[in-house]
Amino acid sequence: MSECVFCAVLQGLKGAEVYRSPSGRAYRKVRDLPASVAILGHDQFYRGYTVVIARTHATELYDLADGELAQYLADMVGVARALDRAFRPRKMNYECLGNTVAHLHWHLFPRHTDDPNPKRPTWQHAHEPPAVSDAEAAATIAAICRHLA
Amino acid sequence: MSECVFCAVLQGLKGAEVYRSPSGRAYRKVRDLPASVAILGHDQFYRGYTVVIARTHATELYDLADGELAQYLADMVGVARALDRAFRPRKMNYECLGNTVAHLHWHLFPRHTDDPNPKRPTWQHAHEPPAVSDAEAAATIAAICRHLA
Repeated sequence: MSECVFCAVLQGLKGAEVYRSPSGRAYRKVRDLPASVAILGHDQFYRGYTVVIARTHATELYDLADGELAQYLADMVGVARALDRAFRPRKMNYECLGNTVAHLHWHLFPRHTDDPNPKRPTWQHAHEPPAVSDAEAAATIAAICRHLA
Repeated sequence: MSECVFCAVLQGLKGAEVYRSPSGRAYRKVRDLPASVAILGHDQFYRGYTVVIARTHATELYDLADGELAQYLADMVGVARALDRAFRPRKMNYECLGNTVAHLHWHLFPRHTDDPNPKRPTWQHAHEPPAVSDAEAAATIAAICRHLA
C-alpha cells in the first residue's frame, strides 16, 4: 500500500481537506464519496478538472466487485454532472488511464468554451499547469460542491 | 440524426456486420449489446482497440436515464474485460471524449506489453494507423467475442 501514490493520498485525506505529499504537492479534497474520494486535479488549466480515486486499490474497473463498481461509476458520473452544472463546459471528457499510477482514478476534464484545442484530447495541448492559490482552489471546490448531492 | 456520424454507423450496422461510410471507411461490428454497439476501432496500432457506441444519441453520460446509463457502463466494462482476457494487455485505457463526434462512445485501448510509450495516453504517440485486412479484423473480432458473454 505504502508504495502507491493514491493510497497515500487517500490515507492523508482521512479527516483532512488537504494532503501534502513528501514532495510538497498539495492534494485537495473535493468530496468524500461512497466508493471514492474526489480531489481537485493538479492541472487547473482546465478549470474544475477533478480526479475521482477509488477507495479500493485496484488496477482495472473489472477488478472491482459488481456493487462497488456500480457505485464507483455512479460517483464518477455524479461528479461529472456537478462539473457541468458548476462550469457549463462545452463538453466533458472522462478518462480512466492509470498508465503511470495503476490505482483506479478517473480524470474528469471540463472542456470550456475558450478551450484552445477543443477537438483534441487534453493530452495533445502542451502547456504548463497554472499556479493556483489556496483561495482559488477553495473557490473552485466550493463551486463543484454546490452541485454535488 | 442524419448529420451524426455514429447515428449513421448504428443505422448501417442494423442487421449487418460491416458498414461502409460514404467516404469508404469500414466500421466493423464486434457485438450488439443492450445499450450500445461495439465496433472495432479504426486504429489497430493498439490491437483490439474497440469503440462502444451508445444506442441513444446523447452527448454526456449524465444525459442518459439512470437505467440506460448503468447498462451502457456495464456494456463498456464487459467489453474491457473481454479485451483483457483476449489480449492480456499490461493496462486498459477507458476514455469517453466526444470532442469531435458528440455522440457518446467509449474508446477502449488495450495497452500491450510492447507499447512504445506505455506511461502516456495513446494520443501522445504519433503514428499512422496500420492497414488491417478483412481477415485480420475478423480474427481480432473473433478473439474479443470469445470472451464476451
